[in-house]
Amino acid sequence: MKVALLGGTGAVGQRFVSMLSGHPWFDLTVITGKTSVGRRYGDLKWILEGEVPEEFRDLVIAENSIESLRGVDLVFSALPSREAREFERELMKRGIPLVSNASALRMDPLVPLVIPEVNPDHLSLIERQVELGIGPAATDPNCTTTVMTLPLKPLHEAYTLKRLNVASYQALSGAGYPGVPSYDAIDNVIPFIPGEEEKVQNESRKILGAIERGEIRMADFEVQATCVRVPVLDGHTVAIHAEFEEEVDPEEAANLLEGFRSEPQELELPTAPEQPIHVRTEPDRPQPRYDRNEEGGMSVVVGRIRRGSNRRSLLLTVVGHNTIRGAAGQAILLAELMRAKKLI
Amino acid sequence: MKVALLGGTGAVGQRFVSMLSGHPWFDLTVITGKTSVGRRYGDLKWILEGEVPEEFRDLVIAENSIESLRGVDLVFSALPSREAREFERELMKRGIPLVSNASALRMDPLVPLVIPEVNPDHLSLIERQVELGIGPAATDPNCTTTVMTLPLKPLHEAYTLKRLNVASYQALSGAGYPGVPSYDAIDNVIPFIPGEEEKVQNESRKILGAIERGEIRMADFEVQATCVRVPVLDGHTVAIHAEFEEEVDPEEAANLLEGFRSEPQELELPTAPEQPIHVRTEPDRPQPRYDRNEEGGMSVVVGRIRRGSNRRSLLLTVVGHNTIRGAAGQAILLAELMRAKKLI
Amino acid sequence: MKVALLGGTGAVGQRFVSMLSGHPWFDLTVITGKTSVGRRYGDLKWILEGEVPEEFRDLVIAENSIESLRGVDLVFSALPSREAREFERELMKRGIPLVSNASALRMDPLVPLVIPEVNPDHLSLIERQVELGIGPAATDPNCTTTVMTLPLKPLHEAYTLKRLNVASYQALSGAGYPGVPSYDAIDNVIPFIPGEEEKVQNESRKILGAIERGEIRMADFEVQATCVRVPVLDGHTVAIHAEFEEEVDPEEAANLLEGFRSEPQELELPTAPEQPIHVRTEPDRPQPRYDRNEEGGMSVVVGRIRRGSNRRSLLLTVVGHNTIRGAAGQAILLAELMRAKKLI
Amino acid sequence: MKVALLGGTGAVGQRFVSMLSGHPWFDLTVITGKTSVGRRYGDLKWILEGEVPEEFRDLVIAENSIESLRGVDLVFSALPSREAREFERELMKRGIPLVSNASALRMDPLVPLVIPEVNPDHLSLIERQVELGIGPAATDPNCTTTVMTLPLKPLHEAYTLKRLNVASYQALSGAGYPGVPSYDAIDNVIPFIPGEEEKVQNESRKILGAIERGEIRMADFEVQATCVRVPVLDGHTVAIHAEFEEEVDPEEAANLLEGFRSEPQELELPTAPEQPIHVRTEPDRPQPRYDRNEEGGMSVVVGRIRRGSNRRSLLLTVVGHNTIRGAAGQAILLAELMRAKKLI
Repeated sequence: MKVALLGGTGAVGQRFVSMLSGHPWFDLTVITGKTSVGRRYGDLKWILEGEVPEEFRDLVIAENSIESLRGVDLVFSALPSREAREFERELMKRGIPLVSNASALRMDPLVPLVIPEVNPDHLSLIERQVELGIGPAATDPNCTTTVMTLPLKPLHEAYTLKRLNVASYQALSGAGYPGVPSYDAIDNVIPFIPGEEEKVQNESRKILGAIERGEIRMADFEVQATCVRVPVLDGHTVAIHAEFEEEVDPEEAANLLEGFRSEPQELELPTAPEQPIHVRTEPDRPQPRYDRNEEGGMSVVVGRIRRGSNRRSLLLTVVGHNTIRGAAGQAILLAELMRAKKLI
Repeated sequence: MKVALLGGTGAVGQRFVSMLSGHPWFDLTVITGKTSVGRRYGDLKWILEGEVPEEFRDLVIAENSIESLRGVDLVFSALPSREAREFERELMKRGIPLVSNASALRMDPLVPLVIPEVNPDHLSLIERQVELGIGPAATDPNCTTTVMTLPLKPLHEAYTLKRLNVASYQALSGAGYPGVPSYDAIDNVIPFIPGEEEKVQNESRKILGAIERGEIRMADFEVQATCVRVPVLDGHTVAIHAEFEEEVDPEEAANLLEGFRSEPQELELPTAPEQPIHVRTEPDRPQPRYDRNEEGGMSVVVGRIRRGSNRRSLLLTVVGHNTIRGAAGQAILLAELMRAKKLI
Repeated sequence: MKVALLGGTGAVGQRFVSMLSGHPWFDLTVITGKTSVGRRYGDLKWILEGEVPEEFRDLVIAENSIESLRGVDLVFSALPSREAREFERELMKRGIPLVSNASALRMDPLVPLVIPEVNPDHLSLIERQVELGIGPAATDPNCTTTVMTLPLKPLHEAYTLKRLNVASYQALSGAGYPGVPSYDAIDNVIPFIPGEEEKVQNESRKILGAIERGEIRMADFEVQATCVRVPVLDGHTVAIHAEFEEEVDPEEAANLLEGFRSEPQELELPTAPEQPIHVRTEPDRPQPRYDRNEEGGMSVVVGRIRRGSNRRSLLLTVVGHNTIRGAAGQAILLAELMRAKKLI
Repeated sequence: MKVALLGGTGAVGQRFVSMLSGHPWFDLTVITGKTSVGRRYGDLKWILEGEVPEEFRDLVIAENSIESLRGVDLVFSALPSREAREFERELMKRGIPLVSNASALRMDPLVPLVIPEVNPDHLSLIERQVELGIGPAATDPNCTTTVMTLPLKPLHEAYTLKRLNVASYQALSGAGYPGVPSYDAIDNVIPFIPGEEEKVQNESRKILGAIERGEIRMADFEVQATCVRVPVLDGHTVAIHAEFEEEVDPEEAANLLEGFRSEPQELELPTAPEQPIHVRTEPDRPQPRYDRNEEGGMSVVVGRIRRGSNRRSLLLTVVGHNTIRGAAGQAILLAELMRAKKLI
């Protein structure tokens, strides 16, 4: 499949490019940008490890326009929210297949918001899109939402979430590039990330919601989040205090997490980790620098699983790579899932 | 008053020395240590800004022993927990006045655990000590507990705390010196601080507890804490998710915090801040680097005051200097309060 | 004297504002900016410790224009180089007194480039300006040049510099705000600072040059510099390898540095440090975090004074505050010197 | 070959273990330690990426003793200097083949100090060892010396070094673990590393020296070094100001560096990089975070090649991985070279 990447020059865009290099199914042929239109991709500043993959160095950055997308079978979007809003709707209307990491369509009731291991069934919304003559379009959630919601899935199934209190320790790469000034990030934390807490609170309830009569009913637990930027390059850490309807056993919970597998694993999708959730038992893990690259950054790592102040309360800490599992890698995995299900 | 300082060579000990320099009431004449006994204080490695205060440079480090304390009217303790356990009990038995920042006696039912602005009334426990022929001895809480509990006081009075979920972003100086290896602290957070969460959970409930028939009844709200070390030099940040018995109005809460004053302010104690709690309204404050030194580090700074997922829930973020308000400065303020009340 | 500050909103501009607060001679009445014209100064983002000084909060940012400067007796410039070029020449032509921290005029043969303790005699160039009906205008050097050249002065006098090899470890605040992206500054150094090495190489030779027949003859030692940005907030460190015409004794050199005083000290100028150069003898000092604020940031701190590979070679390391001694503080000190000499 | 690793639990030791995992020639069967004797290797704190290689997890840490080395064909040493001194001499005497990264024997006139690409011919000293009935023993240089001397080799051959001024920006991992306290490493640089400058000054002249009548004559250029620790996890940066006997052309120099190959490349040794020196032409490279892992950390990366203040002077900056090329990786490469030459 020929694929295009919208917004391919930013921090998340570069991660897409890196992960699409050598991809067995997707052939990246178009990269769009904004200020760098007309330049060789290999001439832009590359902020990831290594070099721009050789096969993409000579791609010339195209504009974000329908014309740029001719002959393309699938569009990945790493656009900033503002730019995504209109253009992604335009793609939907025109029936151009879209897998977006932008926030614009995430809460649209017609668009599935999918963590491939958590709610692959939500892709059934695409049938409704087809009836309406739009799409197919799917989105994957915000980075922090992803890292937090993936381990909540088996716990929610077992014990039913009632109330969530979460605090995040988010990496600098999540703010894009140039992002946070270094003068603010040394010897400091920044206790506010615009829009982030709302995303965590809303998206998690959509993802863990149920499909009923072709529509998503949001899960009805409460979520309270405080999102904070810390001086870490990559890897979001989330401290989760979860309260459930049922009594919880921490050891059983650890087993549920460690044993969790889902469709991407069964289908052996190219980008799927073997084990989406790893559990560490050392008291001081997970740590972002040591755990963010588990299974190439596609797994999250959970630790500090312990009982809270009552028997229905479970506390845990999770680390996940924000631009891999939390963005580009997951969007690619989502596209693989859609392809395997013949939705694109 | 002639005062001694136990454990005066560590990170908190140095802060005591710095803050006792030029103190109008307390004359520091004895500093004890462990590995540096017999050395000049001015020859030790000084990890704070500036130099060792001139008047203390020639003090020779004494051992932690009763003999070292001859002629002293008051003892401050900055001992590590293990060393404090026996020695502080010994001081109590011998009737040597003690104000301790160590954790050893904090949860002792006979020993008041005091944030001077929050529960000065708990000092009435000292009457019981006197009856028993021990003490007087008082302790101040753990750094994170202090930073969190100070702003909770006026809120608890107004709305009655029911459940607390807190996550901390704690500074490196809290681990002492040498403390955390730099190799672990760069591009990383460390999601576990031994014993810290238990302290936060227990101490806060003692401090906000009530004196009944000469004993402290712990406050009965639930507390769940996740404590994390971040690459910040000084200043602990705490994200507080509080649920109250009553409905909360965020604006009113901000006014209660901003207007909060207590005995140390009324008594105009030398180390008391004019306003113990400052409220910032910028969306991205408080930040440790910018806010930790408010009123010389003796005030905490609160921001991001907002409603949670229901009307009885309030979310806020607080920053306070961990070795000043959270340790040495508060212990000195506590001693001043005890002196003003003629308890020492 | 009524003074204006051009470019008062950036990192150096804020330092000027902070240091002009409560200044006994200079009354700051005009602050100009670019993107923030028309806004209250107190409403801008303040990146220094504490708050915007109260007396300047209500100043409204003016444009960089001659009209903005009416009624002003002296103009400080913290303009970016590009903007300074034309406007500072315009000021000179119009006879508006100027003390600039911008690089635009530094190498102009008619404009003195002055470290007040090093070459106060270069201010005699202002006589020539007066003859030509321009100025008075003076500049102070680049931050790294200042930190390096101040301790070289007494050594050059004693031993005559022949060749300099320097490497810098420069703070992030030197890149302004937002400056270096945090994603580049964590776990990294950046081995290139545009234009910096040329400034260090040229400016140092002008400053240590001699006035001959009303003109400056550049000192004729060789300078080779490598300038590197490191993850430090404030305070430039410079490793100096100096070769002299004469044999050097490290101990004597230390005494020369420690004992160095000059006109600003003799005149007791308000911003002058008592001792411009402090010498530390601990093997691991100076360090930027511990030494940058010596005498309010107006002194530099030298250490590691040792002989090089031959008897005419001396190695030393110096730390100085880049936005205080290296920029705003020094420009203010220079203006004080000019005022004391009745040049403005 | 069965190999033992002395001091295998520290920062460099772990790097050895990591690089010996799956090695085609060397089978690591013994790891010695000090405080952890008797423990499973897999139970120690692992400070590198990923996990302890599976094949070594069950190795039990042995003591540093001759008995521990029975049946072993080659000994790698990552011992601290103090411990290495006597024990490595003992090994030499007993004829146990040794490749050491410790500093103890580096300046011994009978022991070759080898960067495999720079002075493989120095291994001829081993013939003299054999005559004397000791050894074979070889050492590889200090990390900073390695990173600096590797690119100097082709330049010295072409232009003949006369004088070197170098300043380093050294990573925290070079101080071992726990190493530098984080409280010292945030917002700071540490301008002194005990013994480091002497090593750089002496070792470089031995390595670039010539074998004459079975002895090494030290190269006779002058070296002056300032070595500084910066907040970087891995990767030493060195700013080199080199003065040569001959006139230097920067472009030609770049070509010499880029084209440099030596015996390890000709012999296609398993750990040899294809190209030991990479040249970057971007103005702001090399940077440690981006360049330290070039060819698995076995290549150094050079940039900022430019003329100095005269035609015989060349300035350049180099980055190399301090525990791979600068320690474990290079020692392994050296052993491979010795094996290929049938010296062990």
